[in-house]
Amino acid sequence: MHPFVFINAAMSADGKISTHLKKQVRISGDLDFHRVDRLRCEADAIMVGIGTILSDDPSLTVKSEEFRRMRLDSGRDENPIRVVVDSLAKTPPNADILRKGAGRRIVFVSGSAAAERVDALRTSGAEVVVAGGQDDARVDLAAALEHLQDTGVRRLMVEGGATLNWSLIERGLVDEIYVYIGSLVLGGSVAPTLVDGAGFSNRDDAPLLDLISIERMDDGFVVKWRVL
Amino acid sequence: MHPFVFINAAMSADGKISTHLKKQVRISGDLDFHRVDRLRCEADAIMVGIGTILSDDPSLTVKSEEFRRMRLDSGRDENPIRVVVDSLAKTPPNADILRKGAGRRIVFVSGSAAAERVDALRTSGAEVVVAGGQDDARVDLAAALEHLQDTGVRRLMVEGGATLNWSLIERGLVDEIYVYIGSLVLGGSVAPTLVDGAGFSNRDDAPLLDLISIERMDDGFVVKWRVL
Repeated sequence: MHPFVFINAAMSADGKISTHLKKQVRISGDLDFHRVDRLRCEADAIMVGIGTILSDDPSLTVKSEEFRRMRLDSGRDENPIRVVVDSLAKTPPNADILRKGAGRRIVFVSGSAAAERVDALRTSGAEVVVAGGQDDARVDLAAALEHLQDTGVRRLMVEGGATLNWSLIERGLVDEIYVYIGSLVLGGSVAPTLVDGAGFSNRDDAPLLDLISIERMDDGFVVKWRVL
Repeated sequence: MHPFVFINAAMSADGKISTHLKKQVRISGDLDFHRVDRLRCEADAIMVGIGTILSDDPSLTVKSEEFRRMRLDSGRDENPIRVVVDSLAKTPPNADILRKGAGRRIVFVSGSAAAERVDALRTSGAEVVVAGGQDDARVDLAAALEHLQDTGVRRLMVEGGATLNWSLIERGLVDEIYVYIGSLVLGGSVAPTLVDGAGFSNRDDAPLLDLISIERMDDGFVVKWRVL
């Protein structure tokens, strides 16, 4: 059994989630920030890949005091469980995701992660879980989702980046995709897009989507798709 | 003076216009094909980059007999002028764009294009125009647009690919962008996106867009933006 998994992201009109320098830029506006905060509030856990930790150092906390109170009033932690997919345990022990805000942190590593790094993360308060076999170099994402389900996670929000999105989609582990499409062009053949990785080679391999809704917001719009 | 320039393209939900193998896949459906055909019918010229010629070998003719008749009835050629931006004159003399359908062809080359290649293209019936200085390695796009304007082109449709789109947008030469966003994920860190090239380094450099309209079509939707 897996939790319900949805990807949420903001991209430019040409599909970029950051610049060719891997630098985040503001793509949406205040209404979208509030929408994302609400999604965080409603999630049991928020997952990102190690690339996002290293390039953006996000805290992934719930920003609105109202939403934090709602969570506390319903007997939950102020923030969802923050989850990092980090095959080689490269998350810096002083990363914001480990330091900022109350709540549990789970770092999924592979069997190849160095013991010292794992120990350092545990000392920083993270629960470090080996997902997959002891000889694997990569986190087994299906095993990670099973662990989260066993932990009580029913609704998992994935906040990127491009490589984690690819790995989850390639393995058929994503239920829905929500994207804010901003009114700007970033360009760049090496700029990260919504879904990178190896890519599908033809239409028969590519997952088809069902368009749920399109809603104008700020100066762009939000699209929701169900993965078929 | 330049013509009105608009880009039309179809991309996956993650911004890809073809697979990581640069192979075109069907992204839209019949209604969108008819929409694109109408745009071609209404354009005075259709421009593509040499990359698109070499990977897709498109003819870029107007497909519907009704639209071709409309053009003829109004005293125009059956097809818009077909234009290739081809700095080194690499268009194969037997390319479909040169062979198929009635109408003029203009190939813009740089001063660095080899004379034999230029001669071969002229023999194939194309008008070959050097756009820019004799020592330039790249086509001067502003000069190319001026030439088209002088030729009577008032409405220019750009049908890709990712590099030509970048070059035109970077130089501020695009008025509007129309994109069909299909309900599938292609993925791929090297798959061509709507706009590739070097990319903008920060938000201040990135051209902002004004959202004109969003319209559901086939199993996806068409977005129109005005470039600010």
